[in-house]
Amino acid sequence: MPKGQETRDFIITKAAPLFNEKGYSGSSIADVMLATGLKKGGIYNHFESKDELAVAAFEHNWGLLKARYAQALHTAGESPTAQLFAAIDVHVGFAEGEPVVGGCPLLNTAVESDDGHPLLRERVREAVDFWRDLLRNIVTRGIAQGEFCIADADEIATIIISTLEGGVMLSKLYHSPDHLLRAAAHLRTFLNDKLLL
Amino acid sequence: MPKGQETRDFIITKAAPLFNEKGYSGSSIADVMLATGLKKGGIYNHFESKDELAVAAFEHNWGLLKARYAQALHTAGESPTAQLFAAIDVHVGFAEGEPVVGGCPLLNTAVESDDGHPLLRERVREAVDFWRDLLRNIVTRGIAQGEFCIADADEIATIIISTLEGGVMLSKLYHSPDHLLRAAAHLRTFLNDKLLL
Repeated sequence: MPKGQETRDFIITKAAPLFNEKGYSGSSIADVMLATGLKKGGIYNHFESKDELAVAAFEHNWGLLKARYAQALHTAGESPTAQLFAAIDVHVGFAEGEPVVGGCPLLNTAVESDDGHPLLRERVREAVDFWRDLLRNIVTRGIAQGEFCIADADEIATIIISTLEGGVMLSKLYHSPDHLLRAAAHLRTFLNDKLLL
Repeated sequence: MPKGQETRDFIITKAAPLFNEKGYSGSSIADVMLATGLKKGGIYNHFESKDELAVAAFEHNWGLLKARYAQALHTAGESPTAQLFAAIDVHVGFAEGEPVVGGCPLLNTAVESDDGHPLLRERVREAVDFWRDLLRNIVTRGIAQGEFCIADADEIATIIISTLEGGVMLSKLYHSPDHLLRAAAHLRTFLNDKLLL
């Protein structure tokens, strides 16, 4: 890997948790300088603007979460039921600060960017689209294989994402895993009632 | 009302939607100057710092939401069941940008302040405490009056708040009321199953 690419990746790795915790507007280039030990010019050698760094930092955080999903679905095996519960469990990791420091980057970035930051909003929409597709596909397979009695897979994706993200918000606010754990338990009960097996 | 108090209130009224949409870090004093037509000195005559204005702006937004709750519960009458559904309907107003421009100030401020801004986090915690108490009290009365079959009122408050706030996040992100409407419909079905009447 060329040295320039290494430095770029190093900056992203340091900026990503910072931006997730303090927000894009709340993080300054001075903060990135402090986190990386680089001078301003050393950062802007690799990124045209703070916006470009912000998008790269978001992609990094989202990549960590997406990798966790892939791993969980792989471990869960072929059953749509097992996969659906495994996908929920990934998000419950945020109760313990996993896999990304500072809570869910989708929630954080959506809330910050929805009334501005069109570039970031576009990226977070694509990420949430991916998550919705992932859940919808699992549910659709579960319906086709006779595992679930569910009328609308997209509606279920909305309910799962809403409940988990609101739970992350409360758990972060109160510095307590309880709210997210309750939200996830509620979802499991709700989904168990839809199982046909 | 003295002129100074009028000007202070005017600044808060203009800063409140701005801060709710763009966030506290994302809004500058220059933005507040533009929104109010006042010079920087004219703003800092009334507020010691941007933080003090931010807290006042949050309180203003939260006050609008709280007033809507009070009105809805009053209109719903004495029945805990009617009150609980009315409380949910208040939040569904965010699907249409009501009662506060820029989405739920609790969600926005919680997500922005949970890893910093201790003063704001403290205020948003108090506001969410108020909302949780309101829901818990309705549920507790509903249990006592034999209207609900619910084991844990606090758990129900967590589920309602999580589902609604996650729904607000998705509806804001996609600029579509559908997600919040689905989240609320899910909650109504869930709660209907707990009704004994």
